Amino acid sequence: MTPPAVILSKPQMGENVGAAARAMKNFGLKELVLIAPKMEWPNDRAQMLASGSGDILEATQVYPSAAEALAPYQLVLATTARDRDVLKEIHTPEAAMRRLRAAARDGARTAILFGGERAGLDNDEMSLADAVITIPTADFWSLNLGQAVLLLAYEWLKSADTTPAVRTRSTVAVPASRQELVGLFEHLEKELDAAEFLFPPAKRETMVRNIRAMIMRSRLSDQEVRTIRGMIVALVRNKYRGKK
Amino acid sequence: MTPPAVILSKPQMGENVGAAARAMKNFGLKELVLIAPKMEWPNDRAQMLASGSGDILEATQVYPSAAEALAPYQLVLATTARDRDVLKEIHTPEAAMRRLRAAARDGARTAILFGGERAGLDNDEMSLADAVITIPTADFWSLNLGQAVLLLAYEWLKSADTTPAVRTRSTVAVPASRQELVGLFEHLEKELDAAEFLFPPAKRETMVRNIRAMIMRSRLSDQEVRTIRGMIVALVRNKYRGKK
Repeated sequence: MTPPAVILSKPQMGENVGAAARAMKNFGLKELVLIAPKMEWPNDRAQMLASGSGDILEATQVYPSAAEALAPYQLVLATTARDRDVLKEIHTPEAAMRRLRAAARDGARTAILFGGERAGLDNDEMSLADAVITIPTADFWSLNLGQAVLLLAYEWLKSADTTPAVRTRSTVAVPASRQELVGLFEHLEKELDAAEFLFPPAKRETMVRNIRAMIMRSRLSDQEVRTIRGMIVALVRNKYRGKK
Repeated sequence: MTPPAVILSKPQMGENVGAAARAMKNFGLKELVLIAPKMEWPNDRAQMLASGSGDILEATQVYPSAAEALAPYQLVLATTARDRDVLKEIHTPEAAMRRLRAAARDGARTAILFGGERAGLDNDEMSLADAVITIPTADFWSLNLGQAVLLLAYEWLKSADTTPAVRTRSTVAVPASRQELVGLFEHLEKELDAAEFLFPPAKRETMVRNIRAMIMRSRLSDQEVRTIRGMIVALVRNKYRGKK
């Protein structure tokens, strides 16, 4: 599957092109295309900001017009600021990346089109896009070109990312078994009984239940259970030593 | 509901603090806190990059240590690069923002903690965080501080954003009614019959069905139906004129 091309129309600042390349590289996009750049190309500032993504800049194609740059693509989504009047469908970044990924999976060549820093996309360019992407923002709106590319590139990777929402590093932390937890409970409760902490007897059951719940909630690893048991042993020993 | 604070530990470059403020402003975050900045503060470069978010920089609090900076917060999630060994739960940005939003909704003060440009967070700082956030990336990994803040701020806004995945601007485009569509179908088919385009008769039904499907797929507005009907009238008139 070929990821979407990032196509920048009339970019003015090399910094933004470099930042775009770097953003692309972070999230697995490869093909950068420029339409009529309003700066020198190749560009030193772009190189400086690209930080490790020089290969993307070297392979960047430059075309004089949107019609020529967009010629090979079968699905083109154009980014636009919030309040533009367009008759096209407006996608959230997430929905846009799902659509691009589905098309790419079917073998289509796809592209994301970004306007220049000042003027955005002109109407001729918009007319060549299948639909529009708008990034949701607060009322204040001032994303630069590099930031817009970053957010869409991130959503591209996310659209296929299978990282679980919440995880722990299983190689370093094996969750404690019930047996290990029960061992800890009984050890702790025995020492607390000996220390007369679980008092008066009528409240013992509730106190034990609360302590066990607190321990369960912390989702201990096997190693952590051993550490806590060691702490209990050490504390008890010190206590008797102190009493002598 | 108070949105999470963004806490930057030992930032080195004013540009990144300014970019962080700008990113925050775009996505509705307000409170910026610095721990032991490794640069002048207030900072001219930060001001330059902040672009419209100067109010956030002016209200920024500075503390000498993480313990002091984090003192008031009840839920702190720390960002970290991918391969760090942590025993804490690791959240995707999306899951992290859900957790922060749920806590904020319950009245908790929450924060997102970012390490400095070179070294990231040290172990003491990590030990004060409830859990960790890792941004999913491609194998190449080189997000700067401003970019990391941007992506998490974006996910914060997204976690409550109700923009439909795909929409059209209903003020400018009212979808055509069935009546308007049927009017268009019949008008077009009448003229195509007259022009002997729907030929031979055995194939007429299939041709009509394909043309109607093509029209339906383009989800016309009421205005567009009128435009197309005007185009048909104009084309037919020209044709007769040409024949004279």
